[in-house]
Amino acid sequence: MVKKPAPDASRRSERSRRAIYDAALALVGEVGFPKTTVEGIAARAGVGKQTIYRWWSSKADVLLEAFLDLGERAAQAAGQQSDAIPDTGDLAADLKFVLRATVDELCDPRFETPARALAAEGLVNPQLGAEFVAKLLEPQLQLYVRRLRSAQQAGAVRPDIDPRIALELFVSPLAQRWLQRTGPITYAYTDTLVDYALHGLAPR
Amino acid sequence: MVKKPAPDASRRSERSRRAIYDAALALVGEVGFPKTTVEGIAARAGVGKQTIYRWWSSKADVLLEAFLDLGERAAQAAGQQSDAIPDTGDLAADLKFVLRATVDELCDPRFETPARALAAEGLVNPQLGAEFVAKLLEPQLQLYVRRLRSAQQAGAVRPDIDPRIALELFVSPLAQRWLQRTGPITYAYTDTLVDYALHGLAPR
Repeated sequence: MVKKPAPDASRRSERSRRAIYDAALALVGEVGFPKTTVEGIAARAGVGKQTIYRWWSSKADVLLEAFLDLGERAAQAAGQQSDAIPDTGDLAADLKFVLRATVDELCDPRFETPARALAAEGLVNPQLGAEFVAKLLEPQLQLYVRRLRSAQQAGAVRPDIDPRIALELFVSPLAQRWLQRTGPITYAYTDTLVDYALHGLAPR
Repeated sequence: MVKKPAPDASRRSERSRRAIYDAALALVGEVGFPKTTVEGIAARAGVGKQTIYRWWSSKADVLLEAFLDLGERAAQAAGQQSDAIPDTGDLAADLKFVLRATVDELCDPRFETPARALAAEGLVNPQLGAEFVAKLLEPQLQLYVRRLRSAQQAGAVRPDIDPRIALELFVSPLAQRWLQRTGPITYAYTDTLVDYALHGLAPR
């Protein structure tokens, strides 16, 4: 017998789901990935463990969706679409715009603390690292690939450039400064990365 | 009363020191930084705990010197000086040469496993991260700063470029691919990074 959902069940589900995301992100930031458990997430979110297992198969799955949700909320708050890089025809301006938004996200403690805990685990746990790269990081990088391809069609990027490598010239420096705290992260810095990458270090 | 060292004491010390480095690197690679202890390093190296405390004040100090020693040995094995980037007058060739050597080091399991464990801890432990960046990573990066400054004097790099940021265009992509396993690490890849960074993505 299938139970009929109460009229407000989906709204209630939405609230539980959000509470579970928040609990998972907070917990992984506090105790790290290895000590985060589905039980701990459930207790913190005020739901039963079975509620979590109804929607997800593991703590990694919960965290993966929690980050996707966080990214979507950040993009909405900034009035952007989370699945595109603007294409105004001015490549430098478009890249600088998106990288500045990334600076804001990386420096937001709601994102930074859990993301750092997860990145640390990904370094030493190849399976988790691969899953998060494939589902969270690589889709973001593919947005740059698309934007650079469009720039190649418009003649703003040389046709022989491999966009998947090219994007790393401005994305990876920011990633390394954030991951390893090797230097300050500012708009001026990411603007400079874009200028250097587009025009090169050698005299023209 | 000061004890006179036996004639072969310094050679014996050197052997102990090397055994301690090897033990520290192996242990951190196996169990991670938090579970690595001075006691564990001592037991594995076959020395007393006090032997370690005579030379170092903490497990972090032991590991720091173990990595410095590993880097020196790798450079010697490759017939290079560990404290310089060649300056043949051909900037692209010199950068490609050093980055290819870095690829070899990053893919050497003797380096990779402990370095990954330590990098993971540095992500979530700001004090340790800052110490290792200051003492291990930043001195390496300053070698690139020096080489790029020399290139600026020779007219091969634009005078308005900030060398400390510029080096990140080719160093950070390699670092991120290694840290997060976001793509293959090959000589062709690092050669491409150098070409893109020097000449830029935009048509000339």
